[in-house]
Amino acid sequence: MSPDFFASRWAQRPAHVTDAGHGLPAGFRAAAAAAGIKGGGAVDLGLLVCDAQDAVSAARYTRSGVLAAPVLVCRDETTPNAMRAVVANSGNANAATGPAGVQAARAMQRMAAGEIGAEPGHVAVASTGVIGVPLALDGFEDAVATASAALHRGGDEAFNEAIMTTDAFHKRASLEVQLPSGTVRLSAQAKGAGMIEPAFATMLCFVQTDAALEPETAELLLSVCVQRSFDRISVDGQLSTNDTVILMCSGESGVRVAPETEDELRFGEALDALLRMLAIMIVRDGEGARRIGRIVVRGGSAEVVERCARATANSPLVKTALHGADPNWGRIAQSVGAALRGTAPLMLDIAIEGITVCAGGIAVPYDITALNAAAAGPEIEYEVGLPGAGFETEVLFSDLSHEYVTINAEYTT
Amino acid sequence: MSPDFFASRWAQRPAHVTDAGHGLPAGFRAAAAAAGIKGGGAVDLGLLVCDAQDAVSAARYTRSGVLAAPVLVCRDETTPNAMRAVVANSGNANAATGPAGVQAARAMQRMAAGEIGAEPGHVAVASTGVIGVPLALDGFEDAVATASAALHRGGDEAFNEAIMTTDAFHKRASLEVQLPSGTVRLSAQAKGAGMIEPAFATMLCFVQTDAALEPETAELLLSVCVQRSFDRISVDGQLSTNDTVILMCSGESGVRVAPETEDELRFGEALDALLRMLAIMIVRDGEGARRIGRIVVRGGSAEVVERCARATANSPLVKTALHGADPNWGRIAQSVGAALRGTAPLMLDIAIEGITVCAGGIAVPYDITALNAAAAGPEIEYEVGLPGAGFETEVLFSDLSHEYVTINAEYTT
Repeated sequence: MSPDFFASRWAQRPAHVTDAGHGLPAGFRAAAAAAGIKGGGAVDLGLLVCDAQDAVSAARYTRSGVLAAPVLVCRDETTPNAMRAVVANSGNANAATGPAGVQAARAMQRMAAGEIGAEPGHVAVASTGVIGVPLALDGFEDAVATASAALHRGGDEAFNEAIMTTDAFHKRASLEVQLPSGTVRLSAQAKGAGMIEPAFATMLCFVQTDAALEPETAELLLSVCVQRSFDRISVDGQLSTNDTVILMCSGESGVRVAPETEDELRFGEALDALLRMLAIMIVRDGEGARRIGRIVVRGGSAEVVERCARATANSPLVKTALHGADPNWGRIAQSVGAALRGTAPLMLDIAIEGITVCAGGIAVPYDITALNAAAAGPEIEYEVGLPGAGFETEVLFSDLSHEYVTINAEYTT
Repeated sequence: MSPDFFASRWAQRPAHVTDAGHGLPAGFRAAAAAAGIKGGGAVDLGLLVCDAQDAVSAARYTRSGVLAAPVLVCRDETTPNAMRAVVANSGNANAATGPAGVQAARAMQRMAAGEIGAEPGHVAVASTGVIGVPLALDGFEDAVATASAALHRGGDEAFNEAIMTTDAFHKRASLEVQLPSGTVRLSAQAKGAGMIEPAFATMLCFVQTDAALEPETAELLLSVCVQRSFDRISVDGQLSTNDTVILMCSGESGVRVAPETEDELRFGEALDALLRMLAIMIVRDGEGARRIGRIVVRGGSAEVVERCARATANSPLVKTALHGADPNWGRIAQSVGAALRGTAPLMLDIAIEGITVCAGGIAVPYDITALNAAAAGPEIEYEVGLPGAGFETEVLFSDLSHEYVTINAEYTT
């Protein structure tokens, strides 16, 4: 197996999961083509199809007040638990484009449905790219036909390529999962590097399995696993208009994942590890990121630990310090203090990579050489203790780099 | 008069105000010295004294949950309306330093009080610099004595120098204000470039006047003017542990600013313009800033317009676009959508420099050449219209630059 996919201490490979390298689970095919949005012949349209007529699906979408047209079409005009295809484009988010944008998203849906012989209501649509630019469909008809003709089980890599924007690398996996009732495959293709914040990011993630899940099981597992993965990351604290995660189950393996069984538990563990690692990969690709951080906050209130974890993960001062391998923990004291206004004196504990630097709100002596060395690794863990007990949360976040500024200062012009 | 101080269309010089260039109002003296905190003989200690025994003062402090020791000492151990001196240091924030930090702040206060012959409770203390490092007072006794011996009315520039950290330029003014009852002077020295967010920033600002104000008038005017200046700016959305603004009035001009008079109105206008321009200068100095933005949000709810203005001003995507002179308004749609989750479809209007780019949530055709030209100036105005009417707010903010990353990735190491 590839040694690379589960390459974080924060997302470990379950013992019953092995990396299958490439390829989609039984019953799935994918391909990509150039629709002319990005220009220069770049691949910017992806098509992914489940050949099982009775595929089961589950989906999650961004909660932004500004929803992109494809999100509106998916949410309002598809059968949520029976989606069996995805047509996706990069280079244009089709957001803030009004009724014309909705028409364009429906047209994409219809073209794909027509090519593969499905109902439009069973085809999901997704877009990512610039906001506020009308989506020109000139090249779509040909591109959808080209992709449709090229569909194959090894098309996951091309599909992944087609949904990338500022992504520096592919975020994709194909896993084999040993369940008590048999072996199933689980694959996913994700994109995301910027405009990434909880709840969740412009991240798109498409997940396929040949296991047979009931709609309720698909819903439950996707919901729980998204909460532990894409909901817990931030590159820049910026919730997107287009976030979409779709799980599709072909059932072609003949292995049924029944509710409240060991199969469900093991399948859930595999899905959890998969999405968690993909989420970490998005953070790691966080537009110029050099290293990533994990802030863990513990205390007596769910709302307070969440607020402090978000504030710290999204602090440009904490993020530039992370970039510079600078264990400047005073900025964590600052970000937590700012998140909890009017609470001084705050009994605040801070540790970096297990080294306590602040206890009860007061600096404590520490070995600066050891601390500097600990802050120079690729993954830095910060722990914050607040008064009280019983609640704990985490956020995984990227640093803030020169490359982030370069990428985002020059994105449309 | 210097043509430079009121150099923003967002802070105009009132007709009855003229720029006096340098120097403190009658009754004030200042000086600076090297206390060895910054090292290399750099000036890092400032002393500012009002010679009037019955000086009237008003102050505002950060609301962070992590309050620096000097803020605690000022807030809890001085007479708020009778402060007549300030001792301030740069290079160390004396924050998260516990009881030892409070002892150090008290020692600074005592040293200054002893040198100038004042009660410790009449001396304000302020610090700015790294958080979480014990403040070593070795060089303070000598530095306070040196500064005390050098006090003079032209010491405002040296005092300003002593409180600078990452500031690229001085933020200082000395104004002459024509009131119906006579002419008064108004001066201020400020610092701030990073860790700057509302409510308000590590900004320190010391304001002096030789007008005679009653405590209630000083309180009222400072409160209103801070709300319209330092409370409306953000460099990086990071509330500091040390923010302090102190107004001191010597009364030495013999001109009394009585409540509810034309004098009060005119004095308030001058103070407002002064603090607003200093606030803009802090944003303009926003650690590497190339241009600054002003987001104005209008709508039917005070809380909602405030939330959207803050979210947009603090969005790294909006800030990098500002840096790159990129009128990528889709990021404003994104930031507003993220601030107002679950409200889709949102009837959102967006204009950049008066050019409408989005109406009712939908992109509208615009002249891209004109928009690009408008986005390339030094001050960019963004307007966001939300449903409803009656509420409007603004936030002034800096861009996000390579220099910000450089400065903050390498601040302590």
